[in-house]
Amino acid sequence: MLIDVHTHIVPERLPDFSNRPGGNRWPTMEPADPGCCRVMIAGANFRTVTDQCWSLERRLEDMNREGVERQVISPMPKLFSYWFQPRDTLDFCRYVNEDVLRLVDTGSGRFYGLAQVPLQDPELAARELASLKAQGFHGVEIGSNVDGKSLADPMFLPFFAEAEAQGLPLFVHALDPSGTERFIGSPFLENLIGFPQENTLAASTLITGGVIERHPGLRVLFSHGGSGFAIVLPRLDQGWRTMEPYLPREPSSYISNFYFDTLLFDPIAIRFQIEKFGANRLMVGSDYPFIIREIPPGKAVGEIHNLTEAERAALHSRTCLEFLGVEA
Amino acid sequence: MLIDVHTHIVPERLPDFSNRPGGNRWPTMEPADPGCCRVMIAGANFRTVTDQCWSLERRLEDMNREGVERQVISPMPKLFSYWFQPRDTLDFCRYVNEDVLRLVDTGSGRFYGLAQVPLQDPELAARELASLKAQGFHGVEIGSNVDGKSLADPMFLPFFAEAEAQGLPLFVHALDPSGTERFIGSPFLENLIGFPQENTLAASTLITGGVIERHPGLRVLFSHGGSGFAIVLPRLDQGWRTMEPYLPREPSSYISNFYFDTLLFDPIAIRFQIEKFGANRLMVGSDYPFIIREIPPGKAVGEIHNLTEAERAALHSRTCLEFLGVEA
Repeated sequence: MLIDVHTHIVPERLPDFSNRPGGNRWPTMEPADPGCCRVMIAGANFRTVTDQCWSLERRLEDMNREGVERQVISPMPKLFSYWFQPRDTLDFCRYVNEDVLRLVDTGSGRFYGLAQVPLQDPELAARELASLKAQGFHGVEIGSNVDGKSLADPMFLPFFAEAEAQGLPLFVHALDPSGTERFIGSPFLENLIGFPQENTLAASTLITGGVIERHPGLRVLFSHGGSGFAIVLPRLDQGWRTMEPYLPREPSSYISNFYFDTLLFDPIAIRFQIEKFGANRLMVGSDYPFIIREIPPGKAVGEIHNLTEAERAALHSRTCLEFLGVEA
Repeated sequence: MLIDVHTHIVPERLPDFSNRPGGNRWPTMEPADPGCCRVMIAGANFRTVTDQCWSLERRLEDMNREGVERQVISPMPKLFSYWFQPRDTLDFCRYVNEDVLRLVDTGSGRFYGLAQVPLQDPELAARELASLKAQGFHGVEIGSNVDGKSLADPMFLPFFAEAEAQGLPLFVHALDPSGTERFIGSPFLENLIGFPQENTLAASTLITGGVIERHPGLRVLFSHGGSGFAIVLPRLDQGWRTMEPYLPREPSSYISNFYFDTLLFDPIAIRFQIEKFGANRLMVGSDYPFIIREIPPGKAVGEIHNLTEAERAALHSRTCLEFLGVEA
């Protein structure tokens, strides 16, 4: 069985929030070519998306053709809307989350849903977590930063405390990198370079900032394989040993709270991840249905030499089930 | 033979530039405990350094004890002084470079020297390159950014053109990362997390920005193993294939211009680098004599399983000699 942990949805229609603070910065859906919509933000086309984002039938067709038994579905991160008034964001989150649940409820058990929450108001977001499991969600997707603030900012501790208390796993997805003025060559580098930088930074600072030390029950998944994090971690250890022991334990000891998808487009890099973290921390993720996605999901995993059957089973489904806290 | 490509010097004394624009932001040396100096910048202690930074005897003692036959020596990057008037920086560079040459000239053939140049004025820096080889330098050390500007900014093309024409190899060293407000946990994270982010970004954008495409004769070495670059590169390829072919060739095809030190503190990560880039792109570097350095140089390389003798010879010296363009 193959589970794809990294797939996104966008509702076919979005509510009209143009009269709320933020005005036309609220995303809206504008019909384009048949089967496509433009996600409009502040009068510009953020991204043209296909009905794979909202159609149950299209999604199941793709899954069946590409050998994916189940998907974990989460909102497109640009919908997080951390940059509006928290109460408005909460309303928007609930609208998007309903669309996640629509697919979960009509999907004959083939989908696990992740919700989005108004994380710019950590107390409000924490309160929203209380009802998610009862609604049918299996976890929460959050940004790698919140309106430019690090996830390791102490302001977010109440949210992490509640996620830990609820046993809700978190999927940290790269979003809005800083320093984009230095990304030279293509407008897509915000995604191609910036997202990896965000993943590296978020994973590193959740450790260095003491969030995992304070909340040892958290389960946190990082998009795009955590990107450079596996490379940076031994340097964090070396710094902890030689420069300043600012944490009670060495940074790499905290990775038992972390999970990573395999979206590195490279069997050699995934093999390296397995050596560093173990197959029990890794799971297939494809970024379906966006243009950069891996086709078919798990392609690079399939190209790894000398993968044991146990490792393959972990990457294909077992780690994901453990991360979600569900039975097969 | 072991060559350590990543070692730094700081002159025991620095010139008094306090009357020039920039005033007390010019670094000065203030004696501290015996054998130590504080590098003072704007009235604060940037770093306390030892006489390993300037003493030929101390350096040779350490090299002999730690099994290092030769070192490539380069200025501590905080001395680059890109943030002053270019003509003043040029004077300061020449002072620092003389101290590099002092060690090279008195070191009985055990040192190769890299110079620093006023890169904030690319034309001035390019002109300075003309005399470096005759003076005895083997290459140039530059920052991963120049006063916040990406190395892929078109303003630097005249410098890269001249480095290519002169056949001078470049050592890109991480410096002054952006987004430090998101580094939470320890003041050393600017180094521990920020430097890897800088390396990843500099290596990626020298490709995506077309610098290597324009100057295919460049030889460029990245500090700290290029950090996350090896992980990001397949994503750059995937983006080039699926999103936009903004370069004539796929990004990974340009790595034949790149070199990396092995300063990752992790034999598994270096093994991964070898698989990705080949041992002929990698060379031992230790960050001698600073506190985070690898002791002894090449320690992690020595812990790699199943390294062939040819690979070890490449990592220990052959790649470095090729990078420098010298005979053994």
